[in-house]
Formats: sequence, structure tokens, C-alpha cells
Amino acid sequence: MVEFSFLQPDRPAAFKDKFVTKVNECLTSYSDGARGEVGVLGLPLSKTSISLSQSSEAPNSIRACLSAFTTFSGKKDTDYKNIKVLDFGDVQVHPTDMEESIERIRISVREMLTRNACNRYILLGGDHGISYPSIRAFGEHYGKIGVIQWDAHHDVRNLEDGGRTNGTPFRSLMEGGHLKGDNLIQIGIRDFANAKVYHEYTKEKGVTIYTIDDIECTGIEPIIKKELDRLSNFVDIIYLSVDMDVVDQAFAPGCPAIGPGGITSRELLSSISAAASHQKVKAMDLVEIDPSKDFRDMTSRLAAAAMLRFMYTV
Amino acid sequence: MVEFSFLQPDRPAAFKDKFVTKVNECLTSYSDGARGEVGVLGLPLSKTSISLSQSSEAPNSIRACLSAFTTFSGKKDTDYKNIKVLDFGDVQVHPTDMEESIERIRISVREMLTRNACNRYILLGGDHGISYPSIRAFGEHYGKIGVIQWDAHHDVRNLEDGGRTNGTPFRSLMEGGHLKGDNLIQIGIRDFANAKVYHEYTKEKGVTIYTIDDIECTGIEPIIKKELDRLSNFVDIIYLSVDMDVVDQAFAPGCPAIGPGGITSRELLSSISAAASHQKVKAMDLVEIDPSKDFRDMTSRLAAAAMLRFMYTV
Amino acid sequence: MVEFSFLQPDRPAAFKDKFVTKVNECLTSYSDGARGEVGVLGLPLSKTSISLSQSSEAPNSIRACLSAFTTFSGKKDTDYKNIKVLDFGDVQVHPTDMEESIERIRISVREMLTRNACNRYILLGGDHGISYPSIRAFGEHYGKIGVIQWDAHHDVRNLEDGGRTNGTPFRSLMEGGHLKGDNLIQIGIRDFANAKVYHEYTKEKGVTIYTIDDIECTGIEPIIKKELDRLSNFVDIIYLSVDMDVVDQAFAPGCPAIGPGGITSRELLSSISAAASHQKVKAMDLVEIDPSKDFRDMTSRLAAAAMLRFMYTV
Amino acid sequence: MVEFSFLQPDRPAAFKDKFVTKVNECLTSYSDGARGEVGVLGLPLSKTSISLSQSSEAPNSIRACLSAFTTFSGKKDTDYKNIKVLDFGDVQVHPTDMEESIERIRISVREMLTRNACNRYILLGGDHGISYPSIRAFGEHYGKIGVIQWDAHHDVRNLEDGGRTNGTPFRSLMEGGHLKGDNLIQIGIRDFANAKVYHEYTKEKGVTIYTIDDIECTGIEPIIKKELDRLSNFVDIIYLSVDMDVVDQAFAPGCPAIGPGGITSRELLSSISAAASHQKVKAMDLVEIDPSKDFRDMTSRLAAAAMLRFMYTV
Amino acid sequence: MVEFSFLQPDRPAAFKDKFVTKVNECLTSYSDGARGEVGVLGLPLSKTSISLSQSSEAPNSIRACLSAFTTFSGKKDTDYKNIKVLDFGDVQVHPTDMEESIERIRISVREMLTRNACNRYILLGGDHGISYPSIRAFGEHYGKIGVIQWDAHHDVRNLEDGGRTNGTPFRSLMEGGHLKGDNLIQIGIRDFANAKVYHEYTKEKGVTIYTIDDIECTGIEPIIKKELDRLSNFVDIIYLSVDMDVVDQAFAPGCPAIGPGGITSRELLSSISAAASHQKVKAMDLVEIDPSKDFRDMTSRLAAAAMLRFMYTV
Amino acid sequence: MVEFSFLQPDRPAAFKDKFVTKVNECLTSYSDGARGEVGVLGLPLSKTSISLSQSSEAPNSIRACLSAFTTFSGKKDTDYKNIKVLDFGDVQVHPTDMEESIERIRISVREMLTRNACNRYILLGGDHGISYPSIRAFGEHYGKIGVIQWDAHHDVRNLEDGGRTNGTPFRSLMEGGHLKGDNLIQIGIRDFANAKVYHEYTKEKGVTIYTIDDIECTGIEPIIKKELDRLSNFVDIIYLSVDMDVVDQAFAPGCPAIGPGGITSRELLSSISAAASHQKVKAMDLVEIDPSKDFRDMTSRLAAAAMLRFMYTV
Repeated sequence: MVEFSFLQPDRPAAFKDKFVTKVNECLTSYSDGARGEVGVLGLPLSKTSISLSQSSEAPNSIRACLSAFTTFSGKKDTDYKNIKVLDFGDVQVHPTDMEESIERIRISVREMLTRNACNRYILLGGDHGISYPSIRAFGEHYGKIGVIQWDAHHDVRNLEDGGRTNGTPFRSLMEGGHLKGDNLIQIGIRDFANAKVYHEYTKEKGVTIYTIDDIECTGIEPIIKKELDRLSNFVDIIYLSVDMDVVDQAFAPGCPAIGPGGITSRELLSSISAAASHQKVKAMDLVEIDPSKDFRDMTSRLAAAAMLRFMYTV
Repeated sequence: MVEFSFLQPDRPAAFKDKFVTKVNECLTSYSDGARGEVGVLGLPLSKTSISLSQSSEAPNSIRACLSAFTTFSGKKDTDYKNIKVLDFGDVQVHPTDMEESIERIRISVREMLTRNACNRYILLGGDHGISYPSIRAFGEHYGKIGVIQWDAHHDVRNLEDGGRTNGTPFRSLMEGGHLKGDNLIQIGIRDFANAKVYHEYTKEKGVTIYTIDDIECTGIEPIIKKELDRLSNFVDIIYLSVDMDVVDQAFAPGCPAIGPGGITSRELLSSISAAASHQKVKAMDLVEIDPSKDFRDMTSRLAAAAMLRFMYTV
Repeated sequence: MVEFSFLQPDRPAAFKDKFVTKVNECLTSYSDGARGEVGVLGLPLSKTSISLSQSSEAPNSIRACLSAFTTFSGKKDTDYKNIKVLDFGDVQVHPTDMEESIERIRISVREMLTRNACNRYILLGGDHGISYPSIRAFGEHYGKIGVIQWDAHHDVRNLEDGGRTNGTPFRSLMEGGHLKGDNLIQIGIRDFANAKVYHEYTKEKGVTIYTIDDIECTGIEPIIKKELDRLSNFVDIIYLSVDMDVVDQAFAPGCPAIGPGGITSRELLSSISAAASHQKVKAMDLVEIDPSKDFRDMTSRLAAAAMLRFMYTV
Repeated sequence: MVEFSFLQPDRPAAFKDKFVTKVNECLTSYSDGARGEVGVLGLPLSKTSISLSQSSEAPNSIRACLSAFTTFSGKKDTDYKNIKVLDFGDVQVHPTDMEESIERIRISVREMLTRNACNRYILLGGDHGISYPSIRAFGEHYGKIGVIQWDAHHDVRNLEDGGRTNGTPFRSLMEGGHLKGDNLIQIGIRDFANAKVYHEYTKEKGVTIYTIDDIECTGIEPIIKKELDRLSNFVDIIYLSVDMDVVDQAFAPGCPAIGPGGITSRELLSSISAAASHQKVKAMDLVEIDPSKDFRDMTSRLAAAAMLRFMYTV
Repeated sequence: MVEFSFLQPDRPAAFKDKFVTKVNECLTSYSDGARGEVGVLGLPLSKTSISLSQSSEAPNSIRACLSAFTTFSGKKDTDYKNIKVLDFGDVQVHPTDMEESIERIRISVREMLTRNACNRYILLGGDHGISYPSIRAFGEHYGKIGVIQWDAHHDVRNLEDGGRTNGTPFRSLMEGGHLKGDNLIQIGIRDFANAKVYHEYTKEKGVTIYTIDDIECTGIEPIIKKELDRLSNFVDIIYLSVDMDVVDQAFAPGCPAIGPGGITSRELLSSISAAASHQKVKAMDLVEIDPSKDFRDMTSRLAAAAMLRFMYTV
Repeated sequence: MVEFSFLQPDRPAAFKDKFVTKVNECLTSYSDGARGEVGVLGLPLSKTSISLSQSSEAPNSIRACLSAFTTFSGKKDTDYKNIKVLDFGDVQVHPTDMEESIERIRISVREMLTRNACNRYILLGGDHGISYPSIRAFGEHYGKIGVIQWDAHHDVRNLEDGGRTNGTPFRSLMEGGHLKGDNLIQIGIRDFANAKVYHEYTKEKGVTIYTIDDIECTGIEPIIKKELDRLSNFVDIIYLSVDMDVVDQAFAPGCPAIGPGGITSRELLSSISAAASHQKVKAMDLVEIDPSKDFRDMTSRLAAAAMLRFMYTV
């Protein structure tokens, strides 16, 4: 093909500095037989949210924010531009059948895992409801699963009052036998954000709970490290489930259920770094970001920064 | 009445989880003879603000934010759903006569107090001008009064340059003999936010002043506790007056006079918790929130969270 | 009860001009045995929308806009303050089960109609999906039904590709035998807003179609009057179904599917006035307003103005 | 002074095309003895508005929009750059005393008129309350006054329910003997925007009323011309009072009381052109623009365009 | 490749109705040897704007809006889904060298034309400065060129005061001998939007000018048809240059230089339809849309609708 | 001149408390021979930004924010109202010639310095590109220069890929021999915000780098003090270059390149205080604030607060 001098018909005309690698340049669409370090899959389901949410837009907004970051860490003096990331695209959800959509997510995650294309995976929600089919699929593929959940809420609502919503994933997982309460750690639980009944339910199930006050006393990194050590004795893999509303509203203004008194973005990033370097940690989901409510994609930027801490560990 | 299957004509059709109690469900409109733990009264006056402000909308926006919080504290393992809160509604202010509006507020607060319906009260401004008639009414009813004021500003402007505005409440109170300077504590006063003349005025009056630097050195909780102990020897009741602009603009973006370098939302909440548990603390006002300037009601959410710390103390 | 001087605990403290009646003052919540001229019911369902929509918020935003209008028409020199409007509230939809929600709407509309409390009804959507259960319920109650539909789109999509969505109501109605194509008039259909297959489907079904060009040539009022005359020979009642996206985006910026080249707000209002005065017109729905996307509630204001043209006809 | 090459310390560094004169360049601050064709005075009072309004910001936003217009009319093939406009600045209103503010406006308008510096005047509100002291001052200076009022509302509310507000100017004027009802023409009065009592009051007073329907039937320019001819027989000068909410919300989205069904911006501009060319027309006020609610200053731009039609008539 | 059940890694997961063709589905990236009816090229240059503008974002926002339209016209009863549109992508402009960017545009347009891949072309600006290199390139390729320019402004500023900006394209073209003034028609020129000097310049050059008043008197379609007939006698091809600020600010709120008193969106669309059907019309540019200032992409939607009128003519 | 009672034609009608001095009242436009403590110059250039930026608006927005601060520091018990600040206005940049604009800035800064009117200077950007000509001019005037740069980025991009942009100032300075790498300190450099090649370039040049982690370990004030001591041995003057994106996005939401994990506003202010009190510190620039992207001018407010820390040191 005779080339054009100043354009390429099939790609955007963005400014390019020849010495800079942006993280988005390291993502390639998965194709048969491809291999990469990290797989990314979008789960754009949010009609399951109790309050109307556009967190289904987050997979796109988070991916777009990757272009705001380079692959180089000065701290580790390492350029991660050779870490290949495979993008599996987004699951096509059903417009009106929620249970069908949940099942499509489970099947799609499994189909991705059976390709054995990557060592680790990032799942981009959607609302927190996606963690039910996603974690279930990981369990089906890998065996016994442990979960560290960053969250202001327990997310163990009853299923009678509205079906499987973004308030129910961990009840669904525990009731369905896909996750033992003993293997679930909840980090960042907040006062006046949960009901007594659900608090007691999690305790009965053996869930380990760390509140904001615990984080303030002990520090979030020591907590993470201690729990990873403990958990790794009992499970085959560990899955990080990050509900962004664990972060204070000043730092993550785009979550549907924002509130004051959460952790800072620095606490989020350092704790994910701490967790991601553990051998058994195989997956992370990032949920509950509604780009239509955000300010300048701040919350998606924070999620993209969290992805980097997960992807670039060595 | 033959019931409808899926609607109730006189109430909103919000999703309801049968195990969750939201704080707004604990508010009932006051009616004759009712008794409750806490009384809430809206004081929607903001035409007295020097700069045009819609803080008159804050009583509604703060109340609306109560539905974002449950009644359960994990930290104290207590469900406060039985703490009854009586809502006295909002004072009807006059569209064009400011002095009349101020007097209506004083009379309405007194009328509320004379019902003896509650043990403690929350006043929702409005601008800081409402603290003059409100504190005066509390003094008239309870006797000698002490005030802890969270604020970036002294609020003791002269009255000649514009009458009673949101910049004058504590001068009005001290000049009128309703509050002794010795019994006023100002927390969070900021550099380059006040005039020398007014700084000297407060010092001459015997007001105790803590700046942001004092808070950084000593911690806000120890300051509060020390001053409560001291103050309680000299007064009959203590009134908390919370100008939300004491909080940094990142955490309270909806105040008319936002600025950098204030306290964090966590410092606000912990200091109110510390104060609210004192026996002599009978009232709190929350002022200077303009919902029309806020982002996602963040500042009203913070104010609602502050209400909870005040209401749920045991 | 000893009255307060300047407040009423159970009602908002809005300014009141003693000589002015606002339309919202004429609405009362339905209670058993009540009778009124017009009944209003909210149908806050929009998870059935193909694109994520918050049109479920519209019943509240439209009602709120009624307070911007008085009951007096200078043109007719009539004060309609005695026209009583009964508000039946909003149907409680299910968070995750769409078919259940659709059925709840049908049942609720029927339950409302069986009270025989009003002569005419206004249904506030929600997305256009609500017209299927609503029109079906009217047919079940009243008999043979004719529909005038203001819309840029045919809304006869196939049901396989996503179930019953906001794109399918008139197919559902015609396929289900609830509405004959001959008795459906579509007004304001736009170029490049529909598919050829669906255009042909409506024509095969005998639907009468008026495009924007027809409106420009003939005038919207003459069209409406002619069709009412014709239709009234074949049906028992006539139902107006108003998809606000028939209006140009400059005049109705809050519809999910805005676009240029639609009718003006004046054309909307005059055509509704023309239709509403016909004896057989018993109901109107107003759909596809997403308040979260609107500018200053312009589109809800226009819908409220449309309600007035429907309610105040004599 | 040794000049800087690329800056002038006392003026903004805006791009300048040497062949273009912007309207703002024709305004000079009034100083003693100055003479000009048109005088401009800002009346930034809006705390008198029933609903909280920032129309006090409009004098600045309208002036700023003058820089978006040149002085050249192709239609008349005339460059008006020699039409000198004197800017008298803004009246300093009182922060809390509304009656004082109203009196300050009256005094300031009179003081301006007694300078005899200009032939005609533009008054920039502020809310419609400013028309009372402004028209009164014009009457005191010039004698018998006639008023053409563009408005959706009569603005003759009673004074008991809230004092002198933006709803009362024409009652104040008529009750105070400053304006005869016979000499008041109201253009653009809308259905469902007024109360029956006030409609009857205006008719009893002899006010001439043109509704939107009248404008549609007759055309706004013929109405204006006819009324100017009639009015000019009875009065010494004519004052145009333009409440921007006469314009449809699509064209003037920044008015506090926006609504559908008003006149277009073209109708506004052509009718002001028609009026401004009349010899007895000496003044125009532009009121009820709240820049904080506007979109891209559209409404202020329209007001600035209206100023040009008033200033550039020959 | 073993397919996934519910996802395709290389494409977005949008809802698809099997019977609907969206216009964006008809665009394919140009590759060597491809042929299509219409070619589209993005010219994202706006640093040449006098006032800072993000109209460089418009090529993307307009393309995105194509997905809001189908390929079917009911008026013509034609489905245009077989009209193939080739997308040549966007020209890569230089970050700091404006003359280089202008030259890159000229070269790129020429390179596109020399492929002889399409019969007609759409150029997506950018600001109006792009019309200089674009029209020049068309002239170089096709011979004698005529231009119909929709615009509120003449765009013939002098080049000394700021180089080649968005205010100078037609001066650059005429001074450079690339366009004869006799072959330039300007439609929609507005009062108080131009300077006398430039008005005279265009008249001296023989440019034909139609003002808003002319459009109101004669109608925009008759004007277009008359001028096309006349122009086609003297030129080889005709180029339509559409500055969206010819449209009134209510209908095109996203132009950098919005203002009241322009044409309606309906007038824009019908006049482009009228022009596009002429044999000699080979190209259209759409300029001066700043998506960052728009409301809900209204102006880009209007531009996309204009593209359809240009593309689908038979 | 006979005075008006309530207005002054040549100045805004803002509320004035007779005891309060706002910082803006201390600025006077420079005129020949004037002397002041601090000089302020606006450098409104941002077309040199790689991504489109309106940081050219920041000189105005920052100046406007000065009116939100008083001259009194309670901490130092000092009123700085006698510190005279001379405003040199803004440099007129060229609309389309970037190199010309850069040269105009250099010349203008030099012209300002040669007046010897002030002891210290504040330069208001504009994007970071302005630091190249500004620092160069300071070096030309004062001799050997040291720079402390607050920044998330190194800003040493190559010049081939886009000319002198906001990504290149420190490369331009070092390559041009205007600044030795040994005399450049970079504070706040962030992971995943820079390229490996540029990181190595700065280290080779001898630049001292402090990352966020260094700040967390050591504290920002100690770092600043240590580096000032060291640097002052080698240079004649020290220039502070403050790219606001060093601050976390929660505290400085209006920077073009916002991101999580930066320093807090308190850290910024205290570090500038620490630096400003050093004898050799003669200048500070504040860059990369785009007011059109900010929320409530938060970032400009922070910049204004930084100015105060620089101006009021004793």
C-alpha cells in the first residue's frame, strides 16, 4: 500500500513521543493462541444495581485512562513495556434478562480461563454483582478460592427483596458453596453503611472483617500481608475484589455509593501493591465506578492506577 | 381500604431491604405531645450571606442524605434504630425582611425548646447568621451557654457595614450579652482568612482560638476533650456550631467559602463524636453548605454523617 | 395542638402568595373512595431501556415541575383550581426482574381503573416500554382502544434481540392482540431514526404514519383532529402515548435519544390541547425523559405543561 | 514611560484585529462632564427575588458578552463605532436591607439622569424588582411615563405576602401613582403562569395585555408599532422593561423562571428594534438573567444582542 | 479460532438489533484499492483558532454520533445501507508548528483525492482554518472551484494580526488565487458579527452574500438552488463549507462563537439536502464544533445529520 | 466631580468591610518608576501544550482568587497589607506562532527585571512550557540559577517529536546551557508518569530527584531545606517552578494531567513556605492549571494560597 504522509486510516492521530510507552500500547486484543502476562475482561453489567448505575460504562473509561500512564516505574527502576496484556473485550450482556447476563459472565470468564492464555486476570465491572459469577468461574477453574474484598459494605443482602443485585454477591457465593466464609476477608467496612443483620451474618459465616478504625490503628499494608499469609494456607488461589467505594468520596467521587470517611487513594494503591506481589493472587476485579457521575474520570484513573499495581509487580 | 398490590399512593416507591433501617426512617414529623431523643429543625436562611448563597437549600439536602446511611455501627456493635428523631420542619423565613427572619428563627427555636420534646437538638442552616438567633434562644431557655465553633473564620465582623450577616453571629452574641467570650472556643481558624482587627477583637473578648497548626500539633480530639472539660465548669449547656468551611475544599467542596488547608472529613467526624458524648452538649448546628455549588452532595453527605455522630453517642 | 408561629413540622416552608394556586396544590394522594377529574400514576421503569436510562426518575421530576405552573388560563379566562387531581403514587418495580415489573404495571393500572375514581388518567413513565402494559390494561378495562403516538420512532422492534424493551411496546401490543394496527396513529416519525423492516411492518399492520414533513405541510393540529374523528368511529377510548423525543433536541434536551429536526414545544402543546378536548380521549402517557441528562429540567417542565393541556380542557 | 514590547500592565492581553471594533471598546466609564449617546447602569439586586437568584451577576455577564459583538450592521451598512456609550458602573446594594437597596437604586438612577449626559439609557438588572425604583426615577425626571413590558408574568403580586419582591414592581408603580395602568402594555403573557386575581387586577387598572396567542396571530412587530403610536399620545417618554423569561426556555435557558411556549430570540430582537427606533423611547431595562444557571451565557448573549438593537437604531 | 459464546475480543459489546443498520456500520477504514461512494477525512486542527478551541475533537465526536442514526429514509422509502463510506482517518497535525499543520492538511487531502477512491468527500474539522488547505487541495485536483459557505462570519480577516487563523481561510484562498470571489457564496452572514472593512473586502472581491434577513425573506432552499445553478456555469466542482455557527445558539450550542439570531437546524438540513443533490457538488466540510463546550453532543449530532443529507441524496 | 451616593463608575460594586484587606487590594498595575516587594506577571501561553489546554486562562483565574484571601496571618500575628505587589499584566502571545510567543515571554520577563522594581517575582502560567523562556530570562539577568521544580514529570522530552511543548522546558534549558542539571531539583516525581529514557537523561545530567516515596519517608519540608542549603552554595539565585500536577487530583482537580497519588495541598503550601523564606529564592512560577476543567476554581485557589506563602514570608 502506498502510504499517506501524515495519516493512517485505521488508527487515531494522537501525538506520539518516540521514547514513551503508554500502558494502553501494551494491550492487544486476544486472538487464538495468544499468550500474555495479564488478561483483561470487561463485565459491563449494572442493571443489577439497586440504584440506577452506569457502571457498565467503566470498562471503557478505565481502559481509556491507561493512556494516561507510562510503563516505567522510577521506584523500581523498571520499564514494564514488555509485560504483554491481552484484552478479551467485553461480555455482551442481555438488555432485560439479568439472570441470563449473570450466567453469560460466568461462562465467559470460564471460557477465558480455559484458554490458559495468561497468568493473571483483571475483571472490569460493572457493579459488584459481577463478582458472583466471576469468582464462581475462577473457583470452578482453579479450585479452592480465597477472596480479599476492599469494600465499605458487606454485600451479603438477602436475595428475596430484589434478586441478585450488586448488594448480594458474597451471599450468593457463600450460599452457593462457591466460597467459604473463612476464606473471605473484608477490608474497609464502614459504620452506618451496613445493617446489623448482615454484620452478624458475615460473622457467623466466619468472614474476617477490618473496619476503617482497624486500618487507622494497624495500617492497611500490614493487614493485607498478614491475611495473605494466613489465607494462602487454605486456598489454591486468591482473588482481589475491589469495590471502589472503599475509598473516601474526595478521592473516588465517581462511585454510585460515595461517602465520607473511607481510605485514601494512596492507601488503596499501596495495599493492592502489597497484595499483588503474592504468588497465589491470580485475579482482581474493579467494580462500582459510574463514569457518568465522576469528575474528570478521577475514579477511573484511580482504577487504572490500581491495575498497574496489579500488573507490574516484580 | 382495599390495598393496591404494588403501590402506596402516599409514599415513594423506593427499594426496601427488609433487614435494613435507613436513618431517614427514624425521623418523624413532630406532632403535639411527641417525644424523641433528638429534635431536628431547619433554618433555611441565607439571604443574609454577604455573597449570594443557596445554603437555604441545605436543610433539605442534608435530610435527603440521611437515606444513604443505616442506623448500625459496627464499631460499637449497636443498632440505633430505636433512637427516635423528631423533625420540626423548617422555619418560614421572610423573602425581603432579614431582621424579621432572624427573629422568626429565635422565636421558633424557643417554641421548639419549650415543648421539652427532646433531650438534644440539631439545627440545620442556612448560613452562619442563623447561629445568632439559635444560640440566643438556647441561652434564653437553658441558661448560661458555652459554644464550640468549628470554623475557618472568627465571624465577628462589624455590624455597620452590612447589618447582621453570616459574618457577624458571634459579635452579635457577645455584644448582646448572650454569650461570654470566655465561653467561646474557635477550632480550625485559618491564616489569610480573617482580618487583624477581628482577630484582636476575639482575643480581647477572651475567646479561645485553635488554628490549623494547633490541630496538627495536638490533634483535634484532645483539644475538644480538654476544652469540654474546662468549659463545663462555667456553663449550663454547650452548643456546637459547625461551619463546614472548617473542612478542606477537597472534602467539603460545597461550602460558599471553600479553600485549601482545612481539616479532613475524618478529623471533623472524630471531633464531633468526641464532643457529642459530653453530657452538657445539648445542641449542634451545621451551616454554610450550598447544595447548588456542591459536587454530588458530598458536603451534605458529610453533614449527615456528622449528624449521626451527634445523635448516636452511647 | 399549640401551633408554632412560623413553621409547620409536616410541610415544606415554601413562600406562599395567598392569591396564587399552583398546580401541585391540586394534587392529593388517592385514598379509598376519593373522586377526582384526573388520576396520575407514576411508572418508574427504565431498566428495560436498551441504552441505560434514568427515565425512572421522571415521575418525580415532572410532578416537581407542576409547582412552576398556576391553574389559571388567561386565554380561556378560567381558573382550573377546582379540577381535582388524584395522585396514585408510583408502581414499585422489581430491581432485577423485568417481566415481573411489566406485569406489576399492568396490574397496577388495572387496579387504579377499577376504582372508577377519575374520568381521565395520566401515566408518567419511565421509558416507552411502559406503554405496553399500560395500554393493555386500559384495553382490558374499557374495551376497544385507539392510540395516537407522538414519536420519532415506530417502536416495533423484534422481541428476540433483547426481550421487551423501550423499542418494542407497539409490537407487543399488536402481536398480543391488544391493539389493532388500524387503530394506531404515529405522529412525528423521523428519517434515519428507524429501520426499513420496521417501517414496512407498521405499514403492513395498517398503522397510519405522519412524518415531520407531513406535519410541516399540513400542520399538526389538523392532522390530530382528522385522525381523532376517524379513529373515534372504531374504538371505545383513545389513549395518547407521548414519547418526548418527538420534540427537537433544542426544546427537549433531556430525552435519552435526542436528535435534530423534531417538532417544537409549541407544536407539542397545541397538538395535545387539540387531542385532549376529544370526548373519547381517556388517557395520556408521557415517556422517555431522563432527568439526569436534562438541562434545568426543561424536558420535565415541557411534560408538566403537556399535563396541563390534557387536564384543563374545557 | 519606557514601553514594554509585548504587554501593557493595565490592560488584558486579548487578541486584537486592527480592523475590528468590538462593542465593549465603545464603553467608557462615566466621568464628570462626559457625554455619550447611551448610558448604561448596573442594578445588581436580586435578594428581592422570591426564589433565590443570582441575577445580581447579570450586569457583569451581559457587559462581558458585548465583546462577542462588533459595531457593524451589514443590513444597514453602518458601522456604529462612533456611538459612544457611557458606563455608570453598578449601584452598591445593601447586603441585608432590601428597602434601602431599592431606595439606593432610585436615587442612583436619578443622579445619573440629572447629569444629562446621555440621550437614552440601559439598565441592567438584577431581578424585575429593580423596575420599580428605576421607572419611578425616570418618571420623576422626565414626567409622564409609558411602559412596554416584555414578560410572561403580570408582576403585580400583593405586597403583604413578602414585601417588594421581583413579583411586585408594577403593582408598586401603579399603587404609588408612578405609572397609570392605561400607560402599561404587557407583551407575551403566558397561560398557567399567572393568577386569576392578578389578571383581573391588571385589567381593572386598564393595562393592555398581549398573550403569546396574540403574538402568533398578529406578529410582535405590528403590535409594538401600534402600541407605541397609541402610547406616545399620552406620555412624555416610553420605557421598555424586558423580563427575559418572555423568551422560550430553549432560547433563554438562564432565566430563573424558565418555561416552554415563549417567544423566540428572533421575535425578541426584532420587537426591540421596532420599539427602539421610536423617538419617545428613552430607556430599557433587561432583567431576570441568572448567569449561574445559564448555559454558555446564552441568555446574557441574547441580552447583549438586545442592547445593540436598542443602541444602534439609525 | 474457537469462538467465545458472548464476546468478541476485538469489538465493542453493543446491543444489536438484527434488522437495524446504523450509519457507523457503513464506514470502513480505507485500505489500498478500496472504493466507496463517499470518503470521510478528519482534520483535527484547532490551535489555529483565535480563541482557544477544542474543535480538534469534533472528527471523533461527529463519527460517534453516526451510531445514533439508521440508514433508512421513510420520506424517500429508501435504505441506504449499501452506500459505502470510506474513512481515511485523521490527519496528524503538528503540536506547535501551525503552518506545517496547514500544509499537512493540504497534502493529505490531495493524497486522498489522488486515490480516486470515492465520488464525493466529507471533511471534518477542526476550526474553519482547515478550509484553506482543504479547498486549495480540491482546486489543485479538480480544477476551477466554487464554494458555498454557511457562516455567520465572512472569515476574511487580515493575516498580519495573527497569521493564518480560523478567521482567515477565505482571504487566504482569494489572495492565493485558489478561489475567485465571484465563485464564493456566503449564506447566513449576521449583523454585529463582522467588521465593516471585511464586509467591503468581500464585496470588492465579488463575493455573493446572503444575510439572515435574506433567508427569512426568500427561504434558504430557493437561495441555494439559484446559486448552484448560476455557479455551476463557471466552475468545475462545488465545495460546501459549513461553519456550524451559522446555526442559532439554541440549536447548535457547541460552537466556539455561539450567538442568537441564526438559522434553525431544520433550515440547515434542508439547505444541505438541496445542495448535495447537485451533480457538481463534490465535497463538504463541517467546522467549528467544540465538543467540550457542547450539551449532550447536540451540535455533533446535527453535524452527523448533515452528513447523512450529503451522503444519501438519490 | 460631584460624587454619586451609591456607585463609582470605574469600579465594581463589591461589598466592603472596612476592617478587612483582601490580597487583591494590594496589587497595583505597574507604572513607570513604581516599586514593590513582589512583581506578578502573567504568561498566558498554552497552545504549546501537547494536549489541548486552557491553562492560558489561569493568570486571570488565579488573580481573581486573591480576593478570597485576607492579608492577615494569625500564626505569625502579622498583617501583610503593606507588602506592595506590582502587577505587570500579561504577555500578549501570538495566536499561531509558538516560537514567537516563547521569545515574547523571554523578552517580557527580561524587560520586567531590568526595571528593578521588585525584590521577587511570581510568574503565572500558562503551561509548563513558559518556564523555559522565564528561567532563561532570570538567568540572563541574575547570573547562575538553581531551580526547585515541584512536578510529577521530568519535563525533558525530546524536541524532535513536536517542538518546544509543555513537556520540554528543562531539556531546553539544559541543552541551551541556561541551567546545569546539577542545579535542578525535582520534587514529587511519580511512578508510571515518565519514560525510562527521560528518567535516565535527568540522572545523567546530574538532576536531583525526589519521588513521592521519598517525600513520604523524609517529609517534604526537610527535603526542601536541605536542598536549598546545598544549592545556595552554587548559584546566584533560586527559582521555584511549581507544576500543580505534583498535587493529588483530589486537591488539584483542575490540572490538565491529573492523577492519583500526589502530594496534598498542605504539603504543597508548607514546602513553598519553607522555600520562600530563603534569601536566594527570587522567583516562583505556577503552571498547568486549566480553569475550564477545574471544579469551583479549587486549583486556582490553591495557587493563590501558594502565592501568599511566597509573598508573605517574614
